[in-house]
Amino acid sequence: MIKEITLRQAKIREQLGLDKVDACLLSTSVNILYANGSIFSGYYYIPAEGDSILFVKRPVGMEGENIHYIRKPEQMPEIMKKRGIRTPGKLMVEGDEMGHTEWTRLQACFPESEFINGTTCLRKVRSIKTDYEVSLIKASAEAHVRAYKRIPEVYRPGMTDTEFAIEIEYVMRQEGNQGLFRTFGDMDAFMGSVLAGDNAAVASPYDFALGGAGTVFNPIGAAGHKLIPGNSIMIDMCGNFSGYLDDLTRTFSIGRLPDKAYKAHQVAIDIQQCMKDEMKEGAVCEDLYNKAIKIAEKAGLADCFMGTTQQAKFVGHGVGLVINELPVLALRSKEIIKSNMTIAVEPKFVIKGVGAVGVEDTYLVGKNGSERLTHLDFDIIDLTK
Amino acid sequence: MIKEITLRQAKIREQLGLDKVDACLLSTSVNILYANGSIFSGYYYIPAEGDSILFVKRPVGMEGENIHYIRKPEQMPEIMKKRGIRTPGKLMVEGDEMGHTEWTRLQACFPESEFINGTTCLRKVRSIKTDYEVSLIKASAEAHVRAYKRIPEVYRPGMTDTEFAIEIEYVMRQEGNQGLFRTFGDMDAFMGSVLAGDNAAVASPYDFALGGAGTVFNPIGAAGHKLIPGNSIMIDMCGNFSGYLDDLTRTFSIGRLPDKAYKAHQVAIDIQQCMKDEMKEGAVCEDLYNKAIKIAEKAGLADCFMGTTQQAKFVGHGVGLVINELPVLALRSKEIIKSNMTIAVEPKFVIKGVGAVGVEDTYLVGKNGSERLTHLDFDIIDLTK
Repeated sequence: MIKEITLRQAKIREQLGLDKVDACLLSTSVNILYANGSIFSGYYYIPAEGDSILFVKRPVGMEGENIHYIRKPEQMPEIMKKRGIRTPGKLMVEGDEMGHTEWTRLQACFPESEFINGTTCLRKVRSIKTDYEVSLIKASAEAHVRAYKRIPEVYRPGMTDTEFAIEIEYVMRQEGNQGLFRTFGDMDAFMGSVLAGDNAAVASPYDFALGGAGTVFNPIGAAGHKLIPGNSIMIDMCGNFSGYLDDLTRTFSIGRLPDKAYKAHQVAIDIQQCMKDEMKEGAVCEDLYNKAIKIAEKAGLADCFMGTTQQAKFVGHGVGLVINELPVLALRSKEIIKSNMTIAVEPKFVIKGVGAVGVEDTYLVGKNGSERLTHLDFDIIDLTK
Repeated sequence: MIKEITLRQAKIREQLGLDKVDACLLSTSVNILYANGSIFSGYYYIPAEGDSILFVKRPVGMEGENIHYIRKPEQMPEIMKKRGIRTPGKLMVEGDEMGHTEWTRLQACFPESEFINGTTCLRKVRSIKTDYEVSLIKASAEAHVRAYKRIPEVYRPGMTDTEFAIEIEYVMRQEGNQGLFRTFGDMDAFMGSVLAGDNAAVASPYDFALGGAGTVFNPIGAAGHKLIPGNSIMIDMCGNFSGYLDDLTRTFSIGRLPDKAYKAHQVAIDIQQCMKDEMKEGAVCEDLYNKAIKIAEKAGLADCFMGTTQQAKFVGHGVGLVINELPVLALRSKEIIKSNMTIAVEPKFVIKGVGAVGVEDTYLVGKNGSERLTHLDFDIIDLTK
């Protein structure tokens, strides 16, 4: 693990060098987990050159010559001075996530430093995985597949979508899913979503691929409706089986669906296959998105691609420590695809009177195309058979 | 619900008046849910006087004369101008939660307004519940009790703490728990924690009452250890059965525990009884905390109160839309207790070689004392009987 942490920090330091920043001061759980291998409350000072320093509030008991306990951020400059560390000229902090109050307080601690917002920079560092991170995502994907294979056995006629969701969550937990669903930005979900019938068309306040009414408190996914013949049921649960996330969606049905649903489902599979081939070193995110749109248009399904009244303007997203990592295969994204990115591709259609169809799989990007990590049949599974 | 929303907004407006602020601009899910009754992505403009205006990004389809769809915050001043709304002199935004980037962008939209950090002010408004909110917390507490009564039936000899946690989560979901666990600040948990044996003494990076190793990804609670005779098992799951949260902790055991554990458990019950009586209109939070500490000291248990190596410096906290609402019954908190606050009191002790003991219940504060909302026996339940 020490080797892995050294590698991750080298990636951060390299980026600091490219951005001509002297140091970063991490404070969010996710970036501290990334850079340190475990979460602590406090600040992690990583300079472009020199020792990284942990300023820890909690937990007690961490030991090492670069670990200093603090009660408040104002103690940091003092400790740095004692250690003979120069005040950084440019200091990167997580400006999108860090509350304005904390930013202002930290700026007062380091009045001579120019503060740089490093949220996107750090997300970009995290978007390209180390081999160890890839191995954890593969492990999560394997367990996720095992759990999804058990979905048909927990279906019972007459269930509601919420009851079905509960049974699937239970299976996921039994197979090792850690439950917690971390996102970037102000959006929440429990373990994922189960979307049945026309609930799939309900617009969401969040930037997920699809919505679902959910509840007032948790407005996403299952809404307590009975599963009825002719419904499709889209299962999109977060795979967090290893400390790293994968994403996987499969479609089920109660009896036979109208032909249009199977046709749209096949188009989703075609889009995914296209993305798999095209996601390679040097590809541009918006080009991938536009290719996906073109396939949907050609099939006459553009008006129900990624929703109906509200259509998500992306077809895939990075996965890692949070479910919505970079890159995003989105309209107008100029971001360049690179090897060792891990990307979930989720082409989905919403068919009125039926529900959502489509697939989502997690891919590892390579030089000439991508490798699928979630090995599960694409077919719509009829739960009544 | 319209009446309820009017009431909540009146509370916000009253506070704006007291703080001499012209308007607030809400942006977090929790405050928008509070002020609007449902979550949307965007901004909610609530002036001290005049109509509230919803600036909505998502979901599509919301209708009303005070609803305006926007793609970006820069459209807000324009719309306000068209409606003849004066630029607010002082504008309150959620400075603790709102990222610095967004704060800066909004400040540029309203260059003439003085921005005020309203995070604490809004938390204080939310801390005093309306009757409707109390009814939802009561409903959650009732369902929570129903779920906890079923805990003994899902215990099986030879289980690990994680396996036990999964079974309890499943029961909670079956009884209507919505799963999602919202917190204030950078701390996460899945549905709550199951703390068995010495894992209860493991210090947490978060500001929960107790810790537990959990996993690297989710460092809180169960850690995959076998439940063994002589272990206490503390179950502290979040009760979110109604859209409002209650909190409830009970202690279980595998066989008979050492006498010291039962003694400490009784001291926790005594502390809670004292808090119940003392939590009334006008009480000061730090006085309550100090009273709790005194009882622990008198019993010779101060060194294991709220942890051992790391001791939480509070004995209770508000509950509502997030699990850690105001007030906090904490060291050095001068906050005044008021009627219709809902407070979870959680005196806990960690006994080496045994685990955690103690209780947590949710109370509704009244003029002369508090009413318990979580009606469940306090006793440690032996799961082997």
